[in-house]
Amino acid sequence: MLALRDPIHVYVRADDLESAVLRTRPVQRLRWVRQLGLAHLVFPGAEHSRFSHALGAMELAGRVYDALAEKAPDLLDGDPRCPERRRVRLAALLHDVGHAPFSHSAEELFEDGLTHEDMTVRLLQSPEVAGALEPAGAEGVAVDDVARILTGRGAETERLLAQIVSGELDVDKMDYLLRDSLYCGVRYGNYDLGRLLETITPLRDPTTREWGIGIDEGGVHALEALVLARYYMFTQVYFNVTGKVLELHLNEWLASEGIRWPSDPELFLSHDDLDVWSAMRRSPSAHARAIVERDHYVLALETREHLTTAERDGFTAVVDEARARFDAGDLLVSNSAKDPHRLSETRVLVRDRDGRLEPMEHVSHFIRHLTRIERFRVYARPERAEAVRAFLRLRWAPLVEPSAVT
Amino acid sequence: MLALRDPIHVYVRADDLESAVLRTRPVQRLRWVRQLGLAHLVFPGAEHSRFSHALGAMELAGRVYDALAEKAPDLLDGDPRCPERRRVRLAALLHDVGHAPFSHSAEELFEDGLTHEDMTVRLLQSPEVAGALEPAGAEGVAVDDVARILTGRGAETERLLAQIVSGELDVDKMDYLLRDSLYCGVRYGNYDLGRLLETITPLRDPTTREWGIGIDEGGVHALEALVLARYYMFTQVYFNVTGKVLELHLNEWLASEGIRWPSDPELFLSHDDLDVWSAMRRSPSAHARAIVERDHYVLALETREHLTTAERDGFTAVVDEARARFDAGDLLVSNSAKDPHRLSETRVLVRDRDGRLEPMEHVSHFIRHLTRIERFRVYARPERAEAVRAFLRLRWAPLVEPSAVT
Amino acid sequence: MLALRDPIHVYVRADDLESAVLRTRPVQRLRWVRQLGLAHLVFPGAEHSRFSHALGAMELAGRVYDALAEKAPDLLDGDPRCPERRRVRLAALLHDVGHAPFSHSAEELFEDGLTHEDMTVRLLQSPEVAGALEPAGAEGVAVDDVARILTGRGAETERLLAQIVSGELDVDKMDYLLRDSLYCGVRYGNYDLGRLLETITPLRDPTTREWGIGIDEGGVHALEALVLARYYMFTQVYFNVTGKVLELHLNEWLASEGIRWPSDPELFLSHDDLDVWSAMRRSPSAHARAIVERDHYVLALETREHLTTAERDGFTAVVDEARARFDAGDLLVSNSAKDPHRLSETRVLVRDRDGRLEPMEHVSHFIRHLTRIERFRVYARPERAEAVRAFLRLRWAPLVEPSAVT
Amino acid sequence: MLALRDPIHVYVRADDLESAVLRTRPVQRLRWVRQLGLAHLVFPGAEHSRFSHALGAMELAGRVYDALAEKAPDLLDGDPRCPERRRVRLAALLHDVGHAPFSHSAEELFEDGLTHEDMTVRLLQSPEVAGALEPAGAEGVAVDDVARILTGRGAETERLLAQIVSGELDVDKMDYLLRDSLYCGVRYGNYDLGRLLETITPLRDPTTREWGIGIDEGGVHALEALVLARYYMFTQVYFNVTGKVLELHLNEWLASEGIRWPSDPELFLSHDDLDVWSAMRRSPSAHARAIVERDHYVLALETREHLTTAERDGFTAVVDEARARFDAGDLLVSNSAKDPHRLSETRVLVRDRDGRLEPMEHVSHFIRHLTRIERFRVYARPERAEAVRAFLRLRWAPLVEPSAVT
Repeated sequence: MLALRDPIHVYVRADDLESAVLRTRPVQRLRWVRQLGLAHLVFPGAEHSRFSHALGAMELAGRVYDALAEKAPDLLDGDPRCPERRRVRLAALLHDVGHAPFSHSAEELFEDGLTHEDMTVRLLQSPEVAGALEPAGAEGVAVDDVARILTGRGAETERLLAQIVSGELDVDKMDYLLRDSLYCGVRYGNYDLGRLLETITPLRDPTTREWGIGIDEGGVHALEALVLARYYMFTQVYFNVTGKVLELHLNEWLASEGIRWPSDPELFLSHDDLDVWSAMRRSPSAHARAIVERDHYVLALETREHLTTAERDGFTAVVDEARARFDAGDLLVSNSAKDPHRLSETRVLVRDRDGRLEPMEHVSHFIRHLTRIERFRVYARPERAEAVRAFLRLRWAPLVEPSAVT
Repeated sequence: MLALRDPIHVYVRADDLESAVLRTRPVQRLRWVRQLGLAHLVFPGAEHSRFSHALGAMELAGRVYDALAEKAPDLLDGDPRCPERRRVRLAALLHDVGHAPFSHSAEELFEDGLTHEDMTVRLLQSPEVAGALEPAGAEGVAVDDVARILTGRGAETERLLAQIVSGELDVDKMDYLLRDSLYCGVRYGNYDLGRLLETITPLRDPTTREWGIGIDEGGVHALEALVLARYYMFTQVYFNVTGKVLELHLNEWLASEGIRWPSDPELFLSHDDLDVWSAMRRSPSAHARAIVERDHYVLALETREHLTTAERDGFTAVVDEARARFDAGDLLVSNSAKDPHRLSETRVLVRDRDGRLEPMEHVSHFIRHLTRIERFRVYARPERAEAVRAFLRLRWAPLVEPSAVT
Repeated sequence: MLALRDPIHVYVRADDLESAVLRTRPVQRLRWVRQLGLAHLVFPGAEHSRFSHALGAMELAGRVYDALAEKAPDLLDGDPRCPERRRVRLAALLHDVGHAPFSHSAEELFEDGLTHEDMTVRLLQSPEVAGALEPAGAEGVAVDDVARILTGRGAETERLLAQIVSGELDVDKMDYLLRDSLYCGVRYGNYDLGRLLETITPLRDPTTREWGIGIDEGGVHALEALVLARYYMFTQVYFNVTGKVLELHLNEWLASEGIRWPSDPELFLSHDDLDVWSAMRRSPSAHARAIVERDHYVLALETREHLTTAERDGFTAVVDEARARFDAGDLLVSNSAKDPHRLSETRVLVRDRDGRLEPMEHVSHFIRHLTRIERFRVYARPERAEAVRAFLRLRWAPLVEPSAVT
Repeated sequence: MLALRDPIHVYVRADDLESAVLRTRPVQRLRWVRQLGLAHLVFPGAEHSRFSHALGAMELAGRVYDALAEKAPDLLDGDPRCPERRRVRLAALLHDVGHAPFSHSAEELFEDGLTHEDMTVRLLQSPEVAGALEPAGAEGVAVDDVARILTGRGAETERLLAQIVSGELDVDKMDYLLRDSLYCGVRYGNYDLGRLLETITPLRDPTTREWGIGIDEGGVHALEALVLARYYMFTQVYFNVTGKVLELHLNEWLASEGIRWPSDPELFLSHDDLDVWSAMRRSPSAHARAIVERDHYVLALETREHLTTAERDGFTAVVDEARARFDAGDLLVSNSAKDPHRLSETRVLVRDRDGRLEPMEHVSHFIRHLTRIERFRVYARPERAEAVRAFLRLRWAPLVEPSAVT
């Protein structure tokens, strides 16, 4: 039994099988993929890698499993050594191994249209991870057992367990919100983990007959707080004005170098932040220098956090005009967008004192009103910034709903 | 200079004048008025009195003053010893001295229709506090100087300073949210105090020409978080289902004993939680026993947290029916209600990067949707509870908007 | 299952039996006995009662039991519902019910030479607590079962379990250090609870053949930190210079009133801080006023924190002289003393990587050097303070080892 | 004014001059030098670089300056913009720029026998940093002004200010203890920063006539706690058994590659963790693989934390024997040693209530007993480990003072 210190969960424990998986290259590679890509250039504390997040997700997976099993002993085995619990923990440990360098900053460069989730499954099936899991194959934690948790394509109970790793109430979010906000030095990501674990419960949707992770009425506000924590982390940290322009430069540079993330898992393993940074530091490209020397483009136009359809269309038109008016290379455009939750698709059920079920977005009156974040921005080459800014403002002003105090 | 330890602010400092005021009976009395009345019977950690809140409010008042003065040096003197800053700190220290026993739990029992704010001013003008302030009278911190901050009836700048102590962004809220959530052992009350202090700024409303505490665009989410923290503390703690019934018993008992809070400040001083508890523990009254022995009425009906007009009216009708059907003494009814903010009345302005002003409720799309909390409940004598519950549910069910999953 | 919020442990859970015990008067009375007596007059945040400490001790008792059972499954049943674990939790919940008003401040006033531990056992055996335990009598958690944990007079394993509640590494200390330091707003009482729980283990002393709570080598520093945390809490908080004089006044007043704590448990129950404060606030006695109006004696002489034999003797002589020279009533003398640990009597064993055992005070080179705290003080009536101070300094100076910088 | 988020200090602010210095390559390079070298391989959270430590040290430097100036207004200018305060902040920001890759792990590889402190001064004088400081040269914050704070070779007051950056009570320790313990997820490094800042004061040593940072009596325990925090961080984290063997491999590899840190500051700038890791990952050397693939030597012998002279000598002899008996390359030897403080050389004075001064090591009875940490270890190639271990234990056992329980 390995006990690793952790700033969020105090200790993360790993049994022998988990320790063996921990030692494989796919997991160790995560030490070289920063959780927040380039964000540490803006939030100096945010130097953490996906490695400790993977540990934290595993730790939480066990706790969430236990919380659910306590509520539904007929559905889930309460034994801490049962195969279901071990699978979920392993799936959580491995859930991010497919992440490209710089995490989400440049995740669209996979060959063959792969997603990082696809790569995760490929790496789980790679000889090294499969080999580490081999000895326990007969104990119900073989590669395929874990894969079904990761893909969500398993039997009824497995589909419930899959939600522990990926769903509206998953350990991925639960961990990264706490971890990112600690390392960034902000408080946005805090929510009441204790209360959440106290109130989650497996609930069967009467319509679809599917089991899902639901919540008892007393936990509604804890879940709201989780949703808000994520909302704030997006608006304040992940979509940070400077962080975003650095990402744009990164993508420009990667494109100009023709860099792609291999679809072959073995080749993929040798790509991480470290080798990209090495290349970037040596590169004479202006986009590389923009990052390395912090000599990046500056903000010329920024929308509010939520856009009307008219504004969205108007922005595109204005940007097109600007591109025609200025050198294309003088501008960088970022269309950051994120739904604060997917409760309308994946419904999370709330159970009231009398056992009645109701979807979360009905119960929570303001979750309903948390609309899609859309923060569009145009950045300009510093020397051209003033001209670009003047041009854009002139075009943009008439398109925005007037609301300033008069 | 006195430096007192504090769980929230680490240290609270008091200069000689403040220390003298601290030693007066009106301030010392706050040691015997619990911040949350009877809530410690539900949240065992919440045994804190208003005394440490008063200290915390004073500490924050200085910090808020400094933050505002740094942004507007022409408007506010930046010297830490200037009279304006001292007045605000003293006003914050004294802002709660008029609180009745059990704080808000029984605040409507003042003689002559007084409010606790009225009593605060009377106590500020009492010989003891006035005497403590006497020596510094010539330094701009006389009784009247402090009173103008407390009442908000002063000159232009004083009206701005008054908002530090009482307004949408006041040190009262800033302190009690952090303090109450620490002592209760919940996390609802946490918000980003650092960010808030970083971004508040005096802004003049172009319509009214009044100065107010506004916020720079970068602090919008910190302010949202403050509003939400308060919202959650109300729904989860202050309107707690058991806490509320204990308050109902308390008020029943106080009424039955004919207890009122004297309007004479000297007489008022001898009323605090301790003497009420002493009497209550000796009292044979069923309502006193309900509190002392935790033998209280139980929940028979509870609405959701927000009501439609139809529901509100329906509730009254249903309660009337129940009162007719059962013994009046078998029921206790609680109509807890609170606005999550008053941004529509007292507008808080937000200043964007370009200096344009916009009211907070325009900028924050979901603050607008935070509607009035109304949680109505009927409690019943335990022996009658089942019958009352059955009766009420039958009557109530048809009135509620159906939303359960089908 | 009851889940109570707690500022230290987030949640404290109580099963039905524990909830029944929780509702008895002996446990509820602890709401009216402040954990730190009069300390809140010095550390404003320290208004907490023994009630939440009792809850915290119960919570920790379960965790410590689990930690020990995990290390020694042959010795301790790992089932969370086993009688041994339930007994330990109940014993921890009840361990403080015999505390007199103001906790340690006036604990020598029991009739018949009782200690608070004696009273605890009497209350455990009282009809009310015995009645609450009745229903589970056949499940191995009868009054006698719990009593053996509290008194330490049971069979071999029970003597080990007794150490969870009272010993060098007990849940009493573990809880109060964290709790008191949080409420006081200091950091002295912090230690690494996670590490401690990770490394404690049952060890059998090869000499005495007794089982005890020992520690693995990797936990030595966590245990040192616990000892130091206690050491600092004594020197900085529990022996605080102002807190001590208030205690002296309290004891003078109680003595002058002839107040004793009844040895009859039923009578004892009606004594708590609240009724003493009520009486004290009404009392015209100078000692009562000293506390109520903070008009206490002031420091005239203070020794260092550790005394040589010569200094100890000298202090007594000097005090005798002062008593002869001044009115006896002008002086109050406090001989605060505490051993930082009892490791020489109750040895705590450390197990190294190779399984060898060694006593903690051998392993920890500076624990050995943590000597007895002895902080003696003379306080004087304010009007006489200057004269007393001058007199005492003159007498005391020659007795102190000279060490000032020359 | 730049306001950067920080996990320890919430915000770190930098004025325009400081921001310019922050942007220079010597400071930005610190982003690529991990604070704890290879420790993140053992404590996964410890991925932080020296960059945020440099920011934290600057922030604390201002606070320490203010604390000292408040106590001694005649000695130190209290104006937040005075040159003395700005110098100290800049010196703190720059104090670590000379650190080699992997911080302390390989700091003896400088050419020409340079220390990292020497390199710090060279970088301060480099055209880039000097250029950044240029505009404010006339304001008393020229290169030489800052250099005198860094070297401690200035006038009387400057020598006092130098101690803020480097001394027994410096901002370097104050920051790294809090920061390292947060990131490692341990609690050892916590101490009471608030109390320390409250009680430090400039004191002139009556013997040497030198000003130093001393402490008021009430802060003695806070200072003890700082010393202990450092002591624990060394024993538990910095001298961690696995961390140390990784360092040994690193040094072996660097030596085998002939890598040295250039004494030329411009050349030095291109050496950081990233380029060393890049090379190490490509290297076929067994020592590089030991680190990269976590396939390191294992512990064969470990002394206690403190050694007698006989043990120290004995260890050397035993190691010599082992080196003769086995292949030299099969063994790696680590002689970790550190004084917990240097209070006997650099005395820190304590001022009691009466203004008398006494050296800290007299006042604190157990600081005196905190002896030099010496933890010597032999690691062996895994395949040979059993044989080496058996051999060493046989030789070592008779040399150790027997203390195991009999």
